[in-house]
Amino acid sequence: MAEHAEAAVRFAIKALLDRDDALARKMKEDDQVLDQLEIEVDERAVRLLAQAPADLRFITTAMKISHDLERVGDEATTICRRAIDLNQEPQLKPYVDIPRMAMLAIEMLKESMESFAERLPARARAVIPRDKEVDALNKQLHRELASYMVENSNAITRCLYLMTISKSLERIADHATNIAEEVVYLCEGHDIRHDPQIKRPVPTSPL
Amino acid sequence: MAEHAEAAVRFAIKALLDRDDALARKMKEDDQVLDQLEIEVDERAVRLLAQAPADLRFITTAMKISHDLERVGDEATTICRRAIDLNQEPQLKPYVDIPRMAMLAIEMLKESMESFAERLPARARAVIPRDKEVDALNKQLHRELASYMVENSNAITRCLYLMTISKSLERIADHATNIAEEVVYLCEGHDIRHDPQIKRPVPTSPL
Repeated sequence: MAEHAEAAVRFAIKALLDRDDALARKMKEDDQVLDQLEIEVDERAVRLLAQAPADLRFITTAMKISHDLERVGDEATTICRRAIDLNQEPQLKPYVDIPRMAMLAIEMLKESMESFAERLPARARAVIPRDKEVDALNKQLHRELASYMVENSNAITRCLYLMTISKSLERIADHATNIAEEVVYLCEGHDIRHDPQIKRPVPTSPL
Repeated sequence: MAEHAEAAVRFAIKALLDRDDALARKMKEDDQVLDQLEIEVDERAVRLLAQAPADLRFITTAMKISHDLERVGDEATTICRRAIDLNQEPQLKPYVDIPRMAMLAIEMLKESMESFAERLPARARAVIPRDKEVDALNKQLHRELASYMVENSNAITRCLYLMTISKSLERIADHATNIAEEVVYLCEGHDIRHDPQIKRPVPTSPL
C-alpha cells in the first residue's frame, strides 16, 4: 500500500508538471487498487484479532496506517483531477513550490513507513516537525496565488486549481505525520497525537 | 463524541452567521475535548480487545467512528478560523447555501450515529446517497464564488474563506457517510466502501 500510495503521489505530480492527461486519467483509475487493499487489510486485521490477539496494538496500528495510505491515494486522485483541468488552459507559470512540497511530502511518507517497517520510533519522531515546513509552503503558496488572482482575474480558475493541489500535498504530509505518530504509539506505548509539546517546534533562541 | 462533534459544527456555523468572534474562539479551544475522547476510545478499544475479543467488529467500528468524529471536530475548527477571518472584513452577502449545507451535514451525522446506536443498517444506507446533495451544493457554491471573484477582485479573500468553509461542510458530510458505511459493515458484515453500485445513485427513469 505504501509503495502504491507513494507512486500515486509521484505520478500525479508528474502528470501535472508534464501536462500529461493520459497519465492523470490512468492514475485516477488505479486508485481503486488502494481502496481494495484497505478493505483487505481490515478483513485480515479482524481475522487476526479473532485468532490470537497477541499483538493487538500492532494490528490496530496497521489498520490506521492502511486508512491513511488509502487517503493519500484519494489526495493523489484530486491532484490528477486538477492536473487534467489545468491542461485545458495555458500554463500559468513554471511551478517551483509544488514540486518542492511534493518532494517533502513523499519523503515524509517514505520515512514514516520505514520507521513502521523497522519499528524505529526515533525516525518516526523526526518526521513529525517536518509537517510544519509543508504547512508553511502551502500557506505561502496560497497567499501568493491569492495576490496573483487580484491582479489577473483571467487566471482565477487556474489559481484555484493550484490551491487545491497545494492543499492536497499538505494533507498528504498530514497523513505521513499521522503514520509517524502511530509508529511512536506502537513502539513506545504513549499517544502523542494532539500533544502540543511535540507539535509546536521549540522556538530557537536568537542568540 | 457525536454530540460534541454535532455541537461543534452547529456553533461554528452560528459563529459564522452571527459574526461572533468570541464564540468562534471558544469553539476552537473546545476541540481538544474531542481529541482527548478519541484517545480514550482507542485505549478502551485496545483494552477490550485484550480481554474478550467477542465483538471484534463492534470494537474496530467504534474506533473508526471515533476517528471520523474527531475529524468532524477539526473541520468545525477550520470553519471557526475562517469565520474569525471573515469578521475582520465587511459581510459579503447573506449566506444561503452555507446554512443549507450545514443543516444537511448535521442531519447526516445525526442519522448515521442513530443508525449506529440502534444498529439500523437500513437507516445507515439512507444516509449514503445524501452525500451527493452536499457535494453538489459545494460544487455549485464553488462555481458561484469563482465567478464572483472575477468581477469583484476586492472580494477574492472573502470568497476564498467561504470556499474553505463550504469544503469543510462537504467533508463533514463525507465523515457522516463513512460512519453510515461502517454501520452497514457492522450490521451486515460486508464492506460497501468504494462500492460504485451504492455510491452512484441509480439514474431515475424520466417516465
